[in-house]
Amino acid sequence: MICITYHCPDRPGIVAELSGFLASHQCNILALEQHVEEDRFFIRIEWEENGAWPTAEAFSADFVKLPVSEGGVLDIHFFNRPQTLGLFVSREPHALLEVLNKIELGELVDAQVSFILGNVDHSKIAERLDIPFYFIPTKDNPDYEAQQLEVVTRYKPDFIGLARYMKILSADFIDGVGCPIINIHHSFLPSFVGAKPYEMAYERGVKLMGATSHFVIPELDQGPIIEQDVSRIRSGYSVDKLKQIGRDTEKKVFAQALKKVFEHKAVVYSGRTVIFE
Amino acid sequence: MICITYHCPDRPGIVAELSGFLASHQCNILALEQHVEEDRFFIRIEWEENGAWPTAEAFSADFVKLPVSEGGVLDIHFFNRPQTLGLFVSREPHALLEVLNKIELGELVDAQVSFILGNVDHSKIAERLDIPFYFIPTKDNPDYEAQQLEVVTRYKPDFIGLARYMKILSADFIDGVGCPIINIHHSFLPSFVGAKPYEMAYERGVKLMGATSHFVIPELDQGPIIEQDVSRIRSGYSVDKLKQIGRDTEKKVFAQALKKVFEHKAVVYSGRTVIFE
Amino acid sequence: MICITYHCPDRPGIVAELSGFLASHQCNILALEQHVEEDRFFIRIEWEENGAWPTAEAFSADFVKLPVSEGGVLDIHFFNRPQTLGLFVSREPHALLEVLNKIELGELVDAQVSFILGNVDHSKIAERLDIPFYFIPTKDNPDYEAQQLEVVTRYKPDFIGLARYMKILSADFIDGVGCPIINIHHSFLPSFVGAKPYEMAYERGVKLMGATSHFVIPELDQGPIIEQDVSRIRSGYSVDKLKQIGRDTEKKVFAQALKKVFEHKAVVYSGRTVIFE
Amino acid sequence: MICITYHCPDRPGIVAELSGFLASHQCNILALEQHVEEDRFFIRIEWEENGAWPTAEAFSADFVKLPVSEGGVLDIHFFNRPQTLGLFVSREPHALLEVLNKIELGELVDAQVSFILGNVDHSKIAERLDIPFYFIPTKDNPDYEAQQLEVVTRYKPDFIGLARYMKILSADFIDGVGCPIINIHHSFLPSFVGAKPYEMAYERGVKLMGATSHFVIPELDQGPIIEQDVSRIRSGYSVDKLKQIGRDTEKKVFAQALKKVFEHKAVVYSGRTVIFE
Repeated sequence: MICITYHCPDRPGIVAELSGFLASHQCNILALEQHVEEDRFFIRIEWEENGAWPTAEAFSADFVKLPVSEGGVLDIHFFNRPQTLGLFVSREPHALLEVLNKIELGELVDAQVSFILGNVDHSKIAERLDIPFYFIPTKDNPDYEAQQLEVVTRYKPDFIGLARYMKILSADFIDGVGCPIINIHHSFLPSFVGAKPYEMAYERGVKLMGATSHFVIPELDQGPIIEQDVSRIRSGYSVDKLKQIGRDTEKKVFAQALKKVFEHKAVVYSGRTVIFE
Repeated sequence: MICITYHCPDRPGIVAELSGFLASHQCNILALEQHVEEDRFFIRIEWEENGAWPTAEAFSADFVKLPVSEGGVLDIHFFNRPQTLGLFVSREPHALLEVLNKIELGELVDAQVSFILGNVDHSKIAERLDIPFYFIPTKDNPDYEAQQLEVVTRYKPDFIGLARYMKILSADFIDGVGCPIINIHHSFLPSFVGAKPYEMAYERGVKLMGATSHFVIPELDQGPIIEQDVSRIRSGYSVDKLKQIGRDTEKKVFAQALKKVFEHKAVVYSGRTVIFE
Repeated sequence: MICITYHCPDRPGIVAELSGFLASHQCNILALEQHVEEDRFFIRIEWEENGAWPTAEAFSADFVKLPVSEGGVLDIHFFNRPQTLGLFVSREPHALLEVLNKIELGELVDAQVSFILGNVDHSKIAERLDIPFYFIPTKDNPDYEAQQLEVVTRYKPDFIGLARYMKILSADFIDGVGCPIINIHHSFLPSFVGAKPYEMAYERGVKLMGATSHFVIPELDQGPIIEQDVSRIRSGYSVDKLKQIGRDTEKKVFAQALKKVFEHKAVVYSGRTVIFE
Repeated sequence: MICITYHCPDRPGIVAELSGFLASHQCNILALEQHVEEDRFFIRIEWEENGAWPTAEAFSADFVKLPVSEGGVLDIHFFNRPQTLGLFVSREPHALLEVLNKIELGELVDAQVSFILGNVDHSKIAERLDIPFYFIPTKDNPDYEAQQLEVVTRYKPDFIGLARYMKILSADFIDGVGCPIINIHHSFLPSFVGAKPYEMAYERGVKLMGATSHFVIPELDQGPIIEQDVSRIRSGYSVDKLKQIGRDTEKKVFAQALKKVFEHKAVVYSGRTVIFE
């Protein structure tokens, strides 16, 4: 299977041009979804691989000859090899365990975990599934980002997932990893940025609390949102109970966001994501 | 604005053929959504009216020349005049009031209410909005269906909505009205068919209860489902409280289903609906 | 029926003391719910009126003799006369219509609307239900708060509901009305304070948007939250579609919050509410 | 901590009697929740263990002297040793993995897994956590229930959880295990009883699909419901996609139901459960 996502200024005839292009190469479209947001046209098309183009480069070379390609941004993905994920974790492993389970059950497309890296030791969890684990303390270890980068560089994963990794990444680190980073934040952003969202939610007396998975950018908790969900708070719940309930929301939202990413259904444009179903 | 829904056996090239056809008539596509379900292709396309076809008939005459039209079912709608709705009601007017409010606020596309018909007198509600009301008792009145049909025939509405109308319609009546009928049933179908769903939900001890809006067919509560939703039941809720909470779910589901119908986003095929977003 | 809500420092024996007190007056408890939050004990008890105390004052006089009454805050309500509500509205009447419908159907306990006051003319809606309407423009009318206060003072409602009334109330006004004010804000607070929450939600790219009903205090959108809910946003939704979907959430949340208030199930303490089921 | 659940015919003074009884033994109530359903009074009380009664038997001996104890049913639990769970599984391990993770993270109260028993071999999963696994085929093995019972009898778990175990249990087996059995059924009961609920949901065209966790009784899928939840189905979803989405609902509902059971918050009466918060 092959999929493209593409976005460009809206004008009449884009669907006809793209679908005609694929039809002329005998491609059988499996799914097509398009949105227009503020005069920008977004489309995602999936088709059965039929040998029309051996590589992404070959497709792109043909694609740029289309009139519609002007001013647009193309992403193309051949689903012919597993996508790889590096996972970062801190003290709480619930989001990590959820992702590992889902990958084991084949529920995150074709993803494989390259490595797990923690500032708390979760090597036992990693060993169970024969995944390399790197324990890199962040306390009293001023070089931890360099050590982390060294691991990332060795494995060159397609994506990094922050499975409740609780240190702020530097702009240099984000630049240096060379792949998108997906975080799970334990609040319904933009509410409750930072380290103590459940305490803040309790203090403010909100009646629903949430979790947000987003691409990481240098500004803390400001990256394009991929997925969010909430659960209801009832009076009498302590902060500890909020945290416990919240973990279920966090792990679900994180796994769903990663799924969208592995399906190439999350397109970033202008600080936001367009999500395809 | 014009929209079509179309479904036919799936094969390569359908999107290209349809979008090429519209592009060749200079139509600017506003929205396109397509699904494949069990080898059947479903599509809905919206475009700005540009005078390419003065009427639905003119469009259809061109459309049938397309190769893709073979074996398919087309629905075409020009949004150039208000769509009309006849409403039936019994004792409880909450779903009726919701629809009347939404129509008044312009939230149900372009719908207008032709008449309200009740086996309980709600003329006061109808008068407020200058809508004709027909009180046709169903008790001790063996001819009530003929009297109802007489009203329907006079107004010829595009659709009939059963806003918690609690009599079963005969197959003859359903045939005779000449338009789709949309019902709101106060359970999460297929659970709890019939007249006492809240009592049945209480007895069974379910933890969520629901409402279902569906097209009416002669088999009771078996028609194609358009929309459903649920709300949570907590222990200690009486049947009366279930009914009270349920009314909010019912009115919301009913209004959402009518919206899908007025937007021509609910296509019936093989006893089910395909719903477009 | 009579209900009390009471909160005080937590210690052993409170339930026994309160329930024993009521039992000794032959009161039949219909509902009892208690929470402990951070060492504060909150309880709500409902019982059938049996003549043990003719008035709230008589009850309070007995209650203060209980050891448990020390350091506590009591609210007592006799459900023996309709509670009254003054409603404020601006351009959009959807929340107003929802509340009027629910009151007409008896779904907001025993509430009656004393008056509707708008800075946009919705007298037609008010007339339908024989409710006095006051049109007090806020533009080019520097005295509008004094004029509003004059209306409020005439009717002395038990509560004021801001049904999408879009002017900020001054601290003097809030002090002057002499009753609690309940607002519906069209965002999931604390996100998106202020006048353009749907535009802000769109810009930020959130995947759920919400509505919040809260008691009004002088700090804008900072009052104790009574109820919140959210609805899902999908890619391709315009700001206008967000507003349309949001109206359903707003009206539902506002009505539910008013219901909690009329049931005396929303207790304010330390800037937050404790909500009883 | 100690908790009781108790239910009896409703009459005035029950709360006073029970809370007075505990107060007279210097017990500090941590949580108290009560419901009345159809003239039956249900209560759950939690208090700190203070040595007033060394055992459940000692408590019961005192309790039966209370006037309120007449006609009632008491359950008492001392949270002073881990509760044990035997898990049954068939082909799909997602519900099993969820429960194992939650137990490992301490999120299911104090539960421990005594054994896992499967008619498909999941020994690798069990080994990771040093839990005994018993592979007992149900095909071509007429004695499988006797072999299962032998395992259960050896471990005498407090509860059995059917984590998507897909064989119907005989009435003899249910009688013989000597502990409550909790099942997860992959539909929103009472809809879609039996083996193919996702296929049935697809055929019927429902717009939400669900999962139900219930106590097992000899009648298939008819036992008292503990917890239910739903997720939304959109047009174009295949049966396979329904199954994939459904797994997330199933595992969440199953874990929540088990949590209620371990917290002693699910009381069965008259074919239904009363659930405490």
